[in-house]
Amino acid sequence: AEGGSSAQVAAQPAGSETTFKTLLVTTEDNITTIKLNRPDKKNAITTDMYNEIVAALEQAAKDDSVITVFTGAGDFYCSGNDLNNFTKIPEGGVQDMARRAGDLLRTYVKAYIDFPKPLVAVVNGPAVGISVTVLGLFDLVYATDGATFHTPFSQLGQSAEGCSSYTFPKIMGTAKASEMLLFNKKLTAVQACELGLVTEVFPDSSFQSEVWTRLRAYAKLPPNSLALSKQLIRSMEKERLYAVNDAEVERLIERWTSDECFNAIMSFFQGKAKL
Amino acid sequence: AEGGSSAQVAAQPAGSETTFKTLLVTTEDNITTIKLNRPDKKNAITTDMYNEIVAALEQAAKDDSVITVFTGAGDFYCSGNDLNNFTKIPEGGVQDMARRAGDLLRTYVKAYIDFPKPLVAVVNGPAVGISVTVLGLFDLVYATDGATFHTPFSQLGQSAEGCSSYTFPKIMGTAKASEMLLFNKKLTAVQACELGLVTEVFPDSSFQSEVWTRLRAYAKLPPNSLALSKQLIRSMEKERLYAVNDAEVERLIERWTSDECFNAIMSFFQGKAKL
Amino acid sequence: AEGGSSAQVAAQPAGSETTFKTLLVTTEDNITTIKLNRPDKKNAITTDMYNEIVAALEQAAKDDSVITVFTGAGDFYCSGNDLNNFTKIPEGGVQDMARRAGDLLRTYVKAYIDFPKPLVAVVNGPAVGISVTVLGLFDLVYATDGATFHTPFSQLGQSAEGCSSYTFPKIMGTAKASEMLLFNKKLTAVQACELGLVTEVFPDSSFQSEVWTRLRAYAKLPPNSLALSKQLIRSMEKERLYAVNDAEVERLIERWTSDECFNAIMSFFQGKAKL
Repeated sequence: AEGGSSAQVAAQPAGSETTFKTLLVTTEDNITTIKLNRPDKKNAITTDMYNEIVAALEQAAKDDSVITVFTGAGDFYCSGNDLNNFTKIPEGGVQDMARRAGDLLRTYVKAYIDFPKPLVAVVNGPAVGISVTVLGLFDLVYATDGATFHTPFSQLGQSAEGCSSYTFPKIMGTAKASEMLLFNKKLTAVQACELGLVTEVFPDSSFQSEVWTRLRAYAKLPPNSLALSKQLIRSMEKERLYAVNDAEVERLIERWTSDECFNAIMSFFQGKAKL
Repeated sequence: AEGGSSAQVAAQPAGSETTFKTLLVTTEDNITTIKLNRPDKKNAITTDMYNEIVAALEQAAKDDSVITVFTGAGDFYCSGNDLNNFTKIPEGGVQDMARRAGDLLRTYVKAYIDFPKPLVAVVNGPAVGISVTVLGLFDLVYATDGATFHTPFSQLGQSAEGCSSYTFPKIMGTAKASEMLLFNKKLTAVQACELGLVTEVFPDSSFQSEVWTRLRAYAKLPPNSLALSKQLIRSMEKERLYAVNDAEVERLIERWTSDECFNAIMSFFQGKAKL
Repeated sequence: AEGGSSAQVAAQPAGSETTFKTLLVTTEDNITTIKLNRPDKKNAITTDMYNEIVAALEQAAKDDSVITVFTGAGDFYCSGNDLNNFTKIPEGGVQDMARRAGDLLRTYVKAYIDFPKPLVAVVNGPAVGISVTVLGLFDLVYATDGATFHTPFSQLGQSAEGCSSYTFPKIMGTAKASEMLLFNKKLTAVQACELGLVTEVFPDSSFQSEVWTRLRAYAKLPPNSLALSKQLIRSMEKERLYAVNDAEVERLIERWTSDECFNAIMSFFQGKAKL
């Protein structure tokens, strides 16, 4: 699986490609790229999309690639959970909907916790909500200088997920993490880099070329050494991350069935709340 | 408990007020403020004051406020433990005094660990000793640019408390934390902010107005979402914090009865040691 | 053990000195200094040297000194594991060699975990591999501005050790740690300081005088208070560090017997790979 020279790669320019409805997934130069492909909706994540991302991560875990990259199509990286997910109340009522949404969220975050190879976020624009919180589970996070990082949970009557209630205080300390997770502070890419959430920031004009040049070089390193090193680091806190994921999901299920959360989301849809 | 509009708040300008001997405690705009009120002693904390702060925190935990703020009257935030606490040896002798002081310290720090709402430090001037170490248990720390942060434990023959032996290395790494906790390094507000102990630093001239404007806005967010999010973050390490508190208190009781500590504190009172 | 005035110290200028083959170990002004003394080999650590360092640390733990310093002779701090350690395959074959090397590594790292006094790295030049990873187990790390920090594990088909798979993410967050531990990123001293791996950086011209002036002052602090404070901080994660050390060693033993690692080290000796 050790990749070829760039000449060989040029002879096979397209790479392999699997078809998803909401994602573009390609493998080239030892790198599998999962691209959120709903640019007209700022790559907001629908229920179908959560399921497709889990499937794409499972597939990437098993393929021949050395590194897996996550990125967004268009100007946004990802605007987070599609709040329309909450507008179709199923037969079982709100309690049932909250329980199902919780199960999906738990499965989604677990796919990141368990991912066995180096996982890289190429943050091409603004990132919101769950697309920010799971960044604490990535190995590298590269951002364009136009990216922003925003987790407006309390404004929507909700609470943190993606293991961020554990990873963010660990990365940046509670005094910085609370302003993001409790008080909705939006960070610039440079701020997120200073706090350790982002590995490095690049000028937007050269972002794609600089990042991909670097990633192609990284993808030529000994693949087992990379995967086993990443798993070694992750193994130190895997049980802890499972427990955090469970606790966050339980709290959110409780939140989703509360009047406070219902009213906050209604205000959002009525244009009263500005995030 | 969702607070009112600012018009309603303006109609009740004084806020509620409870009487303490050493503190000023007020509630206004959904914010309970606990102000250390011994400015002529640089807000050094006496035995009475430890007990009053614990009572004020318990009261704030149960009241209608959304956020609780800690600050100091006058030019100092807090000069730490009042060393006169060590000059009145009770009947039971030094061992008994050390055990009582240890029990009080354990209870004091536990009140911060258990506090259920967002807790904010408004650091209006120099902070010393235990007023610095417990900052690792706050959710937000705002500081004037004239503030300093100093924990001269080893100089006084003592050791770290307030869970700082755990929170400081977690926030800033051991290489930075040791210079504070072992080697008495005094930090400026900007340095403390770079290391993650402080959320943000403001110019002294606009400190109070900028901070309170922000806090009043934060205090209008959904209160349950804030409290539950804070408790979620804290729950990840609550058992750990209890154990750290116990270990620190045990070590200090041993220190307080040592010749090394006795001699260091005597030197301080004789003006030989300059902190 | 409380040290003397500088006048007394001046009367005993030479300090004590123990003879090692590969180290210079001296005690002066309450400070025991362990200096790697193989400057012609950039202080690369041979099997003998690992054993001597363990012995020197055990001796420093028991002597009268207050602080222990680690540094390198010549222009390099340390170029890491001497890869010639891998070229003498013993009778038992590669499996046996890997097992023995693993046991030595475990013992070596354990000596840092268990060290009972403040341990200071005076990083006088480039640092590579295991001399970098164990820095997470030091209490203070001072660096000349000419120092660099490089852990090219995956390039050599290996994986992280020295507890860095745990300490580095804790100190700097996963997004920064992975670029060092997985992708071989070399840091400047200033970068390492910003990430919290280094306490402070000094201009090379005044490095030695500034650092030793400070350390001599630190070594006059109450010695029990210093040692007990350091042990208090370490006690919070000692069991965790033992477990991390074991996991890292097991993974490396597996790596050392893999074709991937064998080929990567061969490429290095054949000059094909440039670190």
